[in-house]
Amino acid sequence: VSSTSGPLITFLSDYGHDDEFVGICHAVIATISPEARVIDLTHGIPRHDVRAGALILRSSLPYLPPGVHLAVVDPDVGAERRAVAIRAADGRILVGPDNGLLSLAAQLAGGVVEAVDIARSPFRLEPVSATFHGRDIFTPVAARLSAGAELAQAGEPCDPEQLVSLELPRARLEDGAVVARVVYIDRFGNVALGVEHDDLADTGLKLGRSVELQLPRGETHEAQYALTFAEVQADRLLLYEDAQRRLAVAVSRGNAATRLGLAVDDELRIIPK
Amino acid sequence: VSSTSGPLITFLSDYGHDDEFVGICHAVIATISPEARVIDLTHGIPRHDVRAGALILRSSLPYLPPGVHLAVVDPDVGAERRAVAIRAADGRILVGPDNGLLSLAAQLAGGVVEAVDIARSPFRLEPVSATFHGRDIFTPVAARLSAGAELAQAGEPCDPEQLVSLELPRARLEDGAVVARVVYIDRFGNVALGVEHDDLADTGLKLGRSVELQLPRGETHEAQYALTFAEVQADRLLLYEDAQRRLAVAVSRGNAATRLGLAVDDELRIIPK
Amino acid sequence: VSSTSGPLITFLSDYGHDDEFVGICHAVIATISPEARVIDLTHGIPRHDVRAGALILRSSLPYLPPGVHLAVVDPDVGAERRAVAIRAADGRILVGPDNGLLSLAAQLAGGVVEAVDIARSPFRLEPVSATFHGRDIFTPVAARLSAGAELAQAGEPCDPEQLVSLELPRARLEDGAVVARVVYIDRFGNVALGVEHDDLADTGLKLGRSVELQLPRGETHEAQYALTFAEVQADRLLLYEDAQRRLAVAVSRGNAATRLGLAVDDELRIIPK
Repeated sequence: VSSTSGPLITFLSDYGHDDEFVGICHAVIATISPEARVIDLTHGIPRHDVRAGALILRSSLPYLPPGVHLAVVDPDVGAERRAVAIRAADGRILVGPDNGLLSLAAQLAGGVVEAVDIARSPFRLEPVSATFHGRDIFTPVAARLSAGAELAQAGEPCDPEQLVSLELPRARLEDGAVVARVVYIDRFGNVALGVEHDDLADTGLKLGRSVELQLPRGETHEAQYALTFAEVQADRLLLYEDAQRRLAVAVSRGNAATRLGLAVDDELRIIPK
Repeated sequence: VSSTSGPLITFLSDYGHDDEFVGICHAVIATISPEARVIDLTHGIPRHDVRAGALILRSSLPYLPPGVHLAVVDPDVGAERRAVAIRAADGRILVGPDNGLLSLAAQLAGGVVEAVDIARSPFRLEPVSATFHGRDIFTPVAARLSAGAELAQAGEPCDPEQLVSLELPRARLEDGAVVARVVYIDRFGNVALGVEHDDLADTGLKLGRSVELQLPRGETHEAQYALTFAEVQADRLLLYEDAQRRLAVAVSRGNAATRLGLAVDDELRIIPK
Repeated sequence: VSSTSGPLITFLSDYGHDDEFVGICHAVIATISPEARVIDLTHGIPRHDVRAGALILRSSLPYLPPGVHLAVVDPDVGAERRAVAIRAADGRILVGPDNGLLSLAAQLAGGVVEAVDIARSPFRLEPVSATFHGRDIFTPVAARLSAGAELAQAGEPCDPEQLVSLELPRARLEDGAVVARVVYIDRFGNVALGVEHDDLADTGLKLGRSVELQLPRGETHEAQYALTFAEVQADRLLLYEDAQRRLAVAVSRGNAATRLGLAVDDELRIIPK
């Protein structure tokens, strides 16, 4: 890495692109840390969906250069939730609300080794608004940290053990079936399940074979367990390992969530045939 | 500010992200002013909504580092409206159509001290298209100015007094009620009113108290005047000062514009109780 | 161009902004080629619409600084289609799937002088997923090439003659009418036809005159052949040369595609009056 490329901030939120929220945060960073380079990971997290944000931050982390990782999905802005900046064991800095949003990524990064409460950070922009802590607290703290400030300067120390942690639904085996919940649905209608790559070995699923998918209402569908969409005829259901290495359900050239009427948290049974 | 971070251009438009318009303008800047750094303030201004663009440019301005501020919301492209570059009293440069889009920000920046008509700017890209002056006129002029050209080189001098100015509806007091118009609705359905922070002292509104909102059709609703969304129960109406320090109406975890059937320019009466 | 501005990568895709796909690709570039500057041309290509992507890449090319042009619209990811990096006669590098997406731009850039198959590129990220070659193949190859790697290092040589090429529908003259197909519809409902600037001279169309538009179902409408939208009354049909210098149909301040019920590939007859 050359010395001219500047420190890196990645930024994830549910702000969307219709309003100026993201642009204002970029401007705040440029004011405080003009050398910083910002990568917009995504601002399309469904509004207030902390778990979707946490999952995407975690699955993206291995691809992100080390730096400051700013994340804002904050349904309780203005309420009692803490605002935090944390340092993980691998050196990454995460900044955001303490509502579980950062917890999955922090865990993947080796756990939290230092945490500060930044609600009254000296780096805040005054006056702090009641509704836009992204602009007034999270972004200026992230920018100052990327510009070289120490974590301890950003706020009051707090106990890493007391940070809010998300619990994800884990898949279980039951009478030879894999019982798993929907954890995420992308914009193509592909349905990711709570079954990670490392859990797959125990499931008895075999590539190229058919499986029976049993929906929450008892209805069943046949699907093929395949490596790629291209192996499966257009309009047919497939089960596959997605780009985040999770088990997922799709329709080749179609929309599986719509076809099956699935939503996040629905439980599926996958029965090898 | 370090010398390696380059000059800054901020960019606001109604181009959206579905087409390549924004990307082409970025490419034009990179060609003319490779050192320039571009901050996309927003490209989600509702199509042709000059007033929404003007309001967002003004409310964002205090957060933008000084530089060249490019703005394109241009319903009359190809017609007689002027294209301008202007210098404000605080040194900021604004570039865009002369339809009022720049006027609120220019006023906040201390007023216009120099203006040039850039319709036939020597910095234009030839051939100038009839419909995409963002690419052919506004962006190349902004890029050249950010790269160090003088305003006087960009076009023909014109009289700052003759630039188009937007008039915003001002709130008034009437029989103890605040009568205000809707000036902006964000994507969450929060409804901003034409009542600025500095006008609030005279309104008789008291934090924590209830108010009666009277809609254009006479219908009334109770709302709480609160500091934060979190003070108000989910699904309840609140009146609050938004992140742009304007009075606004919201529904906690809901959509106020839809709930109340409000649109921009509707008039509301707010009656303290 | 100053030495501090770094090599340039432009990026076009159908990934949209709702998911993190674009952000992950930016992160991959920042990891491999931290000096590179990325311009997002657009990520709003309709899903899997290779021709729309190819048309936009070609029409944008004259505005893009020379560099590496990454493009991903890839309905057959995981199937037998090749992945390629190519060098055009003018020195530009194009990277993407070999499904015609790059072909129109390559032709405009003087034709392909060197091509490599990058499916098994040493620059790939392992493990390569079945569905996200943007992250695992195309982006890392583009990043390494922008950082100075030679094309020959990126993959196995392949014959430029064997690359997939798109055929565009050409307009024809028939009994004094111009018969042309719809090639693209933008988000404003403006309808671009397969008639390029250089073909216009032969059509007998005269600026300022009326024409008759005959729709696929035989229905006819009157339109004005105009230079700008502003010449035509609101809500009236016009025929004009668009910003890509193609003949196009629009409704002044309205949506022509909706009004006329037109879709890509529909055939129109334009009859001078």
